[in-house]
Amino acid sequence: MAQKIEIPKGLTPDALVAAHERIAAYVHRTPVLTCSSINAWAGAALFFKCENFQKMGAFKMRGAVNALLQLPKEKLEKGVATHSSGNFAQALALSARLLGAKAHIVMPSNSPSVKKAAVRSYGGQIIECEPTLQAREDTLAQVVADTGATFVHPFNDENVILGQGTAAKELIEDAGPFDYLVAPVGGGGLCAGTALAARFLTKKTKTAGAEPAGADDAWQSMQAGRLIPQTNPQTIADGLRTSLGDKTFPVLYHLTETIIRVSESEILEALKYILERMKIVVEPSAAVALAAVKTDPERFRGKKVGIILSGGNLDLSQELHVY
Amino acid sequence: MAQKIEIPKGLTPDALVAAHERIAAYVHRTPVLTCSSINAWAGAALFFKCENFQKMGAFKMRGAVNALLQLPKEKLEKGVATHSSGNFAQALALSARLLGAKAHIVMPSNSPSVKKAAVRSYGGQIIECEPTLQAREDTLAQVVADTGATFVHPFNDENVILGQGTAAKELIEDAGPFDYLVAPVGGGGLCAGTALAARFLTKKTKTAGAEPAGADDAWQSMQAGRLIPQTNPQTIADGLRTSLGDKTFPVLYHLTETIIRVSESEILEALKYILERMKIVVEPSAAVALAAVKTDPERFRGKKVGIILSGGNLDLSQELHVY
Repeated sequence: MAQKIEIPKGLTPDALVAAHERIAAYVHRTPVLTCSSINAWAGAALFFKCENFQKMGAFKMRGAVNALLQLPKEKLEKGVATHSSGNFAQALALSARLLGAKAHIVMPSNSPSVKKAAVRSYGGQIIECEPTLQAREDTLAQVVADTGATFVHPFNDENVILGQGTAAKELIEDAGPFDYLVAPVGGGGLCAGTALAARFLTKKTKTAGAEPAGADDAWQSMQAGRLIPQTNPQTIADGLRTSLGDKTFPVLYHLTETIIRVSESEILEALKYILERMKIVVEPSAAVALAAVKTDPERFRGKKVGIILSGGNLDLSQELHVY
Repeated sequence: MAQKIEIPKGLTPDALVAAHERIAAYVHRTPVLTCSSINAWAGAALFFKCENFQKMGAFKMRGAVNALLQLPKEKLEKGVATHSSGNFAQALALSARLLGAKAHIVMPSNSPSVKKAAVRSYGGQIIECEPTLQAREDTLAQVVADTGATFVHPFNDENVILGQGTAAKELIEDAGPFDYLVAPVGGGGLCAGTALAARFLTKKTKTAGAEPAGADDAWQSMQAGRLIPQTNPQTIADGLRTSLGDKTFPVLYHLTETIIRVSESEILEALKYILERMKIVVEPSAAVALAAVKTDPERFRGKKVGIILSGGNLDLSQELHVY
């Protein structure tokens, strides 16, 4: 018998509203921007929720601070821990610092030094490990055992999902209603939160996930009706190389209309448009959502579409081959 | 006997207010942004006027549209003309299109194709010439003779100067009062307009010009007390390679406190900070003003400083050597 795919019980409209109130003092209410030349290029009326302007440069701040604010004081005092080489590491470090707690971040030894420096700049304690998933999990378990810190998962956590959903909630409040919301899909926390906000706060807004073709585990999982982990992801969108989790997949499965896959050249073209026309800095993962709108004109033509620009931590030292 | 250095008579408080009202429907009132990490780095409270978000991506739009709106209808009908390979070419083309007029843009044949494409995208008619100043002036004279178009100078024009001054006017209105305003200096239109706005609208705000050390004709001219043309400019800040004009120099001479020169590495460091921390795209010329604040801490420490981010037309195909 096939396993039931059920949305976690805690993901309710009231919980989303409560999360938003809880985190309001700790995050920026980021602006919503429009750009007429990008509208003309994409053939739709686009509204960009600029989480690249969020604290530490990405929406991850929302979920991290919401999760930490839900911890009892005695747990928070013992610190928090995660393993990540990306934006969640910085988000957890900064959230912990804002709340006067310690953050232990397990990072692969081959993480770029700029990422380690960013975590340290937010006061995070870095514990290096071998660059394998096994080593990351083992090291994290050891850190938790040694310190009593609470592990916070980067996306497979109800409080994190709800926190990420507050970006879409603000977007709907500030510029809605929309025909569609589009969010990039990595672990699925942002897209799940976006789909929940659309379902809870609107009557007709549909949610589409956007994914690199080279890391299409969400699309594969939707087709199969079960979680299919990502192996060997190949994409410049480094935030989207992760597999879905068992809390995010059911939300996507039930609440998204589709997952749209885009090529690397489509990602870079969208990135170029955002940098050149909107004059804002976003990371490749953020451009994936715009690329999805451009690549699926039948779905979006003439529609009003909200796009979550997930983050702005673009590595300026890398060769982007934008041209 | 030394020639008197006199501010042109048309540059009055009433004229600035009138220019602002005149252009309001044709330009964006751009946002003012702040960034706590850049404040910490620079040691001052900085307020950035984001002309990178202006139409066509730079403050030049303000001066161009103000100049065109001052032309009698019969002149406008015969079109306008300029020679430029930079932002003013695009600004004049777009302004003319908005007013239903023709813009003839004389560009050196070796202008980057991306710049020609931008002018064409705004409806400008490009006339190519040999890449010498003489050829540019001769070709422009021929275009004017052939078409009856009115020549609009990119900066040495009272209406252009007043138009550029409206950026500082908005900055003062939205976030003032300031101890200092800082604007980059190329031909001097923006810096002159900024100094006029500070003088007309505030009691104590001082204006500083910011200039690449490799194109320091304004600094040289201020020292000498007479216009010293720029020869062989060497800077990545391509908008600032021009010499001052006889209408902009007197304004800078009388109304700026100082001209601050910055090195190429200081420009690139400031550019990197703006891209990485503010998550907005600016061109190197815009970063020069921030670099000036950083390089002169005695002057600016603890002060409230308004910075005009002049434009966002960063050439993404060039190697920036930001790292």
